[in-house]
Amino acid sequence: MSNSVSNSQAGYYFLQVPGPTVVPDEVVAAMSQPMMDHRGPVFAKLAAEAAQNLKPIFKTKQPVMVIPASGTGAWHASIANCLSKGDKVLIPEVGMFSTLWGKVSRELDLEVIEIAGDWRSGIDAQKVEDALRADTAGEIKAVFATHNETSTGVTSDIAAVRAALNAANHDALLFVDTVSSLVAMDYDHDGWGVDIAICGSQKGLMLPPGLAFAAVSEKALEAKKTSDLNPGYFEFDPLISATETGLYPYTPPVSLIYGLKKATEMILDEGLDAIYARHAKLGEATRACVNVWGLETQCQVEGQHSNAVTAVRVPEGINADEMRAFIFDKYNLSLAAGLGKIAGEVFRIGHLGYQNPLTLMGALSGVEMGMEAFGIKFKKGGVNAAMDILSK
Amino acid sequence: MSNSVSNSQAGYYFLQVPGPTVVPDEVVAAMSQPMMDHRGPVFAKLAAEAAQNLKPIFKTKQPVMVIPASGTGAWHASIANCLSKGDKVLIPEVGMFSTLWGKVSRELDLEVIEIAGDWRSGIDAQKVEDALRADTAGEIKAVFATHNETSTGVTSDIAAVRAALNAANHDALLFVDTVSSLVAMDYDHDGWGVDIAICGSQKGLMLPPGLAFAAVSEKALEAKKTSDLNPGYFEFDPLISATETGLYPYTPPVSLIYGLKKATEMILDEGLDAIYARHAKLGEATRACVNVWGLETQCQVEGQHSNAVTAVRVPEGINADEMRAFIFDKYNLSLAAGLGKIAGEVFRIGHLGYQNPLTLMGALSGVEMGMEAFGIKFKKGGVNAAMDILSK
Repeated sequence: MSNSVSNSQAGYYFLQVPGPTVVPDEVVAAMSQPMMDHRGPVFAKLAAEAAQNLKPIFKTKQPVMVIPASGTGAWHASIANCLSKGDKVLIPEVGMFSTLWGKVSRELDLEVIEIAGDWRSGIDAQKVEDALRADTAGEIKAVFATHNETSTGVTSDIAAVRAALNAANHDALLFVDTVSSLVAMDYDHDGWGVDIAICGSQKGLMLPPGLAFAAVSEKALEAKKTSDLNPGYFEFDPLISATETGLYPYTPPVSLIYGLKKATEMILDEGLDAIYARHAKLGEATRACVNVWGLETQCQVEGQHSNAVTAVRVPEGINADEMRAFIFDKYNLSLAAGLGKIAGEVFRIGHLGYQNPLTLMGALSGVEMGMEAFGIKFKKGGVNAAMDILSK
Repeated sequence: MSNSVSNSQAGYYFLQVPGPTVVPDEVVAAMSQPMMDHRGPVFAKLAAEAAQNLKPIFKTKQPVMVIPASGTGAWHASIANCLSKGDKVLIPEVGMFSTLWGKVSRELDLEVIEIAGDWRSGIDAQKVEDALRADTAGEIKAVFATHNETSTGVTSDIAAVRAALNAANHDALLFVDTVSSLVAMDYDHDGWGVDIAICGSQKGLMLPPGLAFAAVSEKALEAKKTSDLNPGYFEFDPLISATETGLYPYTPPVSLIYGLKKATEMILDEGLDAIYARHAKLGEATRACVNVWGLETQCQVEGQHSNAVTAVRVPEGINADEMRAFIFDKYNLSLAAGLGKIAGEVFRIGHLGYQNPLTLMGALSGVEMGMEAFGIKFKKGGVNAAMDILSK
């Protein structure tokens, strides 16, 4: 926990951005253990156990690689291992991160076919199906789907995207970005037939940033054999081997691996269904609060609201970033910025990871008091609506 | 900070008992430094600086001893150094801790004259004056006044007690228990003419329990010369010397001294007036909340409400301890028990130390939701009243 990295006011710091999220004290303690020989038997056992703990979390029987990099590195890794120069990839636009995924793809010499989106709704599976059906030559090698778009608070139905591939009888791989969805909401790697899922450590997994993850399918590993890109640092083979042996191809970030073992144990102890339910309640309470305030969520489609983060639109004429800065100074509460084309128009309330009803109530109270002091026109009483949900 | 010592639910633990209070991460980090030679120059300098930092906090030019013991040890120390067997001491009853102070006094062979109180109001200075005037033989050697009665959330006017001694022209020493008042509200050792003030580390000073403090006057040190009690471990002379040299008469609790230096620096950095004002606002907001709930505070006298802790009476037929246990399980929120003759009738909301508006809002939301779920009859909307105060 971090109550000392804040605006230097007394008392807990309310870290309500959608990552980095609060790191539990137990994880901090685990990470504070002394360095050890990363080629020795003790570390090897610990690192292998940490990697194996990720399988039930991704709901897969296949290996889940631990990659010493940020989530962006896992994008790079998955492309560089399983695709080839000039490959076409289909990317439904849902917000800032799906857009950035396209940018990374172009940098690695892929050809991106984007399905334009409005940043206020999730993936339209019908459009994915249509695009795949139109690709009679089978040039599209992969569909890149963002499970939870962190910039907008919109989730997409990955099972429906899989169904679209099946309906179109198309052979493309399905890549899924689970960076801000994993643990916060149900993700079923094998059940949904996902080929590569990538994630980062600093969100639902309750760790500092620094580790990325990639879950793969047999089909993805088959595709790897014909890839002509050079993964270099991100070569999958030794990373897959490390999930069994705990021995990395280079020096791994030892303390983060200590933390990963502890955090995954805590997650499996609490139980995924209990964690999903906790996030669902926090998300519902946040939306009930925003609704009473009379403000609009960036997400406009019922059933697509994220349980990890809620993006709230501020009234015309208000600069959301100035409001956030004001609230940080006044209440020791960090809200996240709007990104890309909605910068300044939204603020985002993260409610994923190591969060509970009272941390959310502290945060929502801070927003309600902060908005009033900043002079925003809204209806008070949101916090009461949130309590009605949380106490149900 | 401690988010892992709770009821094992995810998310921050809301520690709202009036001590031990939340220990800031900076203090935890300071206490986590390696052990060092407690007779060496580095520790000596650090320990002396820590002790000197206490002087402005107690508002005194006299030494403030650091005693490796709990607050109860400081009661023992102050009696054993400055009083004698059979001495009469006048103790105005205000609650559980003034009562316990009397018990310790009797155990050390003092004769206690108690001014009976109702546990719902502070010290009646007129009664102190009357008792002293009646003591024409000058047999009363000290008045023991509790500045903030932690069990009831009632403060007493120490300046008025001093004025009572002066008005009666009585020579008794004035001992003050500042355990839960120091830092949370104004305490002026020299200005109020207090002879011995005792305190503990685990409240306003934001440290774990383990250290006690005693501020003395020249008159107290003069009285020490004729004391016939044997202080033993608690002998003042070497402890007073340690405030200058940093060298203790026995092995001091090294990590707590590291923490003391850091915590006192943080307090002096934030500034006492700012800290008093922060506590005043948290106290006012809590009382506004309880008032809307339609519940009674244990303190019945306007102007005597504590800014460190609010004791709230539960409706007839409700067991406050069962309610507290329920709320702890449900919301990861620790409220404090009623003590002594009001056990089960009150719960106490601590709002002292490393606390801010949003931690209080989390706590008050937890009480409001918890009381409803527990089936207590009260009026909702208290949290809104608290926000009205906090956002002023």
